[in-house]
Amino acid sequence: MTDLMARRRALLGPNMSTFYDEPVHLVRGEGVWLWDAEGRRYLDCYNNVAHVGHCNPRVVEALCRQAGTLNTHTRYLHEGILDYVDRLTATFAEPLKTAILTCTGSEANDIALRMAEAMTGKRGIVATDATYHGNTALVSHLSRSNVPEVGFGLGGLIRHVEAPDSYRIPDPDGQRFAAKVEAAVADLERSGVGFAALIVCPLFLNEGFPTQAEGWLRPAAEVARRAGGLLICDEVQSGFGRSGSHFWAHQRQGVVPDVVTLGKPMGNGHPVAGVVTSEAVMARFRTAFRYFNTFGGNPVSCAVAMAVLDEVEAQGLQGNARRIGTLAAARLRALAERFPMIGDVRESGMVFGAEFVTDRAAKTPDPAYADRVVNAMRDRGVLLSKLGRHRNTLKIRPPMPFGAEHLDILIGTLEAVLTDLDPAA
Amino acid sequence: MTDLMARRRALLGPNMSTFYDEPVHLVRGEGVWLWDAEGRRYLDCYNNVAHVGHCNPRVVEALCRQAGTLNTHTRYLHEGILDYVDRLTATFAEPLKTAILTCTGSEANDIALRMAEAMTGKRGIVATDATYHGNTALVSHLSRSNVPEVGFGLGGLIRHVEAPDSYRIPDPDGQRFAAKVEAAVADLERSGVGFAALIVCPLFLNEGFPTQAEGWLRPAAEVARRAGGLLICDEVQSGFGRSGSHFWAHQRQGVVPDVVTLGKPMGNGHPVAGVVTSEAVMARFRTAFRYFNTFGGNPVSCAVAMAVLDEVEAQGLQGNARRIGTLAAARLRALAERFPMIGDVRESGMVFGAEFVTDRAAKTPDPAYADRVVNAMRDRGVLLSKLGRHRNTLKIRPPMPFGAEHLDILIGTLEAVLTDLDPAA
Repeated sequence: MTDLMARRRALLGPNMSTFYDEPVHLVRGEGVWLWDAEGRRYLDCYNNVAHVGHCNPRVVEALCRQAGTLNTHTRYLHEGILDYVDRLTATFAEPLKTAILTCTGSEANDIALRMAEAMTGKRGIVATDATYHGNTALVSHLSRSNVPEVGFGLGGLIRHVEAPDSYRIPDPDGQRFAAKVEAAVADLERSGVGFAALIVCPLFLNEGFPTQAEGWLRPAAEVARRAGGLLICDEVQSGFGRSGSHFWAHQRQGVVPDVVTLGKPMGNGHPVAGVVTSEAVMARFRTAFRYFNTFGGNPVSCAVAMAVLDEVEAQGLQGNARRIGTLAAARLRALAERFPMIGDVRESGMVFGAEFVTDRAAKTPDPAYADRVVNAMRDRGVLLSKLGRHRNTLKIRPPMPFGAEHLDILIGTLEAVLTDLDPAA
Repeated sequence: MTDLMARRRALLGPNMSTFYDEPVHLVRGEGVWLWDAEGRRYLDCYNNVAHVGHCNPRVVEALCRQAGTLNTHTRYLHEGILDYVDRLTATFAEPLKTAILTCTGSEANDIALRMAEAMTGKRGIVATDATYHGNTALVSHLSRSNVPEVGFGLGGLIRHVEAPDSYRIPDPDGQRFAAKVEAAVADLERSGVGFAALIVCPLFLNEGFPTQAEGWLRPAAEVARRAGGLLICDEVQSGFGRSGSHFWAHQRQGVVPDVVTLGKPMGNGHPVAGVVTSEAVMARFRTAFRYFNTFGGNPVSCAVAMAVLDEVEAQGLQGNARRIGTLAAARLRALAERFPMIGDVRESGMVFGAEFVTDRAAKTPDPAYADRVVNAMRDRGVLLSKLGRHRNTLKIRPPMPFGAEHLDILIGTLEAVLTDLDPAA
């Protein structure tokens, strides 16, 4: 372990983040399980990238079959990308019927912002203040939680609005959020930058997946459209059925975005991502920018991504997310009755968690206690993390085949950890 | 075919580039061969991405084995990325001993430019005027041949210098090029943007791989360093032994860059790319920017990339590139003696080509004839393309296992096409 950390420092440089006080050295994965180098098994309650389960046989088989047949780029004709985009866009409402395939969600968001620029002729972007959208020079400025010192001066084009927080900031119908967006749009217009787009994760996952009524995002979307800008929904985390109620989380929010970006779970870990939009936006972008991506939409990536869609459907994973999410929320609420450090329980399908506070009345966030819980869970063989505006919310976002028997282990372990860990200690 | 083109238009949007007047519909690949949907076989003289051959068994086996074992991200410890970066950086001179792994060359160049910004505190970039370095909002501005209408106003940070052209612009020792770079640097400093980096492909592959003496780039590198900027070598096309004489083309140019970017051939088509630099640059960048890439450096990508290095070594592919390159140049020069439309023959290992002119004395480029040749070659079962400052140079850049028997087919077919195609017709 020490040796591996030293090698990382030497070969990869400083400041490479690892999870946990004692990092985990993984060697094998299967379904919702991971094994470390000493043969210890961990229940994976964190990795949404392995959407249909680690080393899913259907996905691995599709990968190997196509990698052994042909892997090339889209300047030749191939049915793989066409069949996949046809199938993918069938899950979206009109007019979201065209796509660009990329390798990463960062590349997808980098394109989405340029689509907004191409459509509006403007460059101002509104984002929430506790989000993450990726790592390119342009896109990295959207994340205020991790402000880069470098980035070619693009930070001035972004306006951050207060992320929703259903536990502390009452906003039942999204009007407060819409007003914040409206103020940011006005500021961008006043500054001369102009307003091009509002970009949000429709579940506000990094912000702590606040509890929201269906259609909550509609007022903000109307503000963006009225101002002549685009609504970009970053479904890199929230998509492919994870919300349980819908295949895409924006559908739950009652909006049809102008542009939707996809990533992480799309290839179950294989680097494939994409941008879905209307014919009008696509035509405008492809006229303004002759985009080509060497690896994007290659036959292997498309075969893998197709197998992920097949598996979500064949295993009924969206329905499973709905069932497990509901069950998980109930189990967490039962824990909240016994443990006062749980201030709030939230759930959006197969993403759920508990927010830790030092004081329920004041709702004072307790990120230090969340850290201790996360590390104690890891020590007992359950992998999860924390997130949110106050970095005090458990981030439980397992592979989609996570079942009731796995939930039992998770909740049982959490109960033991909360019993053992005195928040005052 | 018509049906596939219509589906592409509907699902992927307009302006998606395809190769050839009659696009090729590929279904299978093996080694240096590709097959279309009608079972017709093509000799692949173009695809450098399939570096060790289409569907290389060693690479496919490594891919399948690791994809069936574990695929996760670098916030857990895994030996795959460490073993690979160790092996990769062993091919570089000091101090190029650390790396970041990404999914695409575009991501790699996007990082490289930010490394330059982090090191210099400045943002001005000098690039050649017929190059391509990728497709992010930032990086896309480096390519003047395809000026994007969109890109968040970053174009003003770039200065383009005349690309080298050994056929028309005498510059035997690179002093003329260095002077052009010096003028661009001065212009950036005068404008207040400041000079951060010079970025070049060390073989100037898109520019038409000009014939250059070893060490040709040294004067320009000295100009960049003297001005306090970095030298970034984009080895996305030129690396992994393709130049024949060296594993990395910058080694042939007699320079040690501050940053080297890698891509296309690195994973034989699997989306893996990277940035190699010194500990000093890496530490500065990782302090200025906490870079994380979900898919970057995952165990599957590293297993694939390692298999590519194994295969290059086991099959002696760098040596093959040297041998075939020399042989190809001789065969092309023999054709030039018979066909006056060949104005110049150039070769840099496993990348070679002929430049077509309407008039040898005036060296007038004939891009239309190059187009006709490229399409006629395709019709006769040989895939290649064209490139260069004047778009009149054959781009012959096959998978590295391309042998003398394949060269015979290529040259024989080219001879027949040149015999049949009257440039005046």
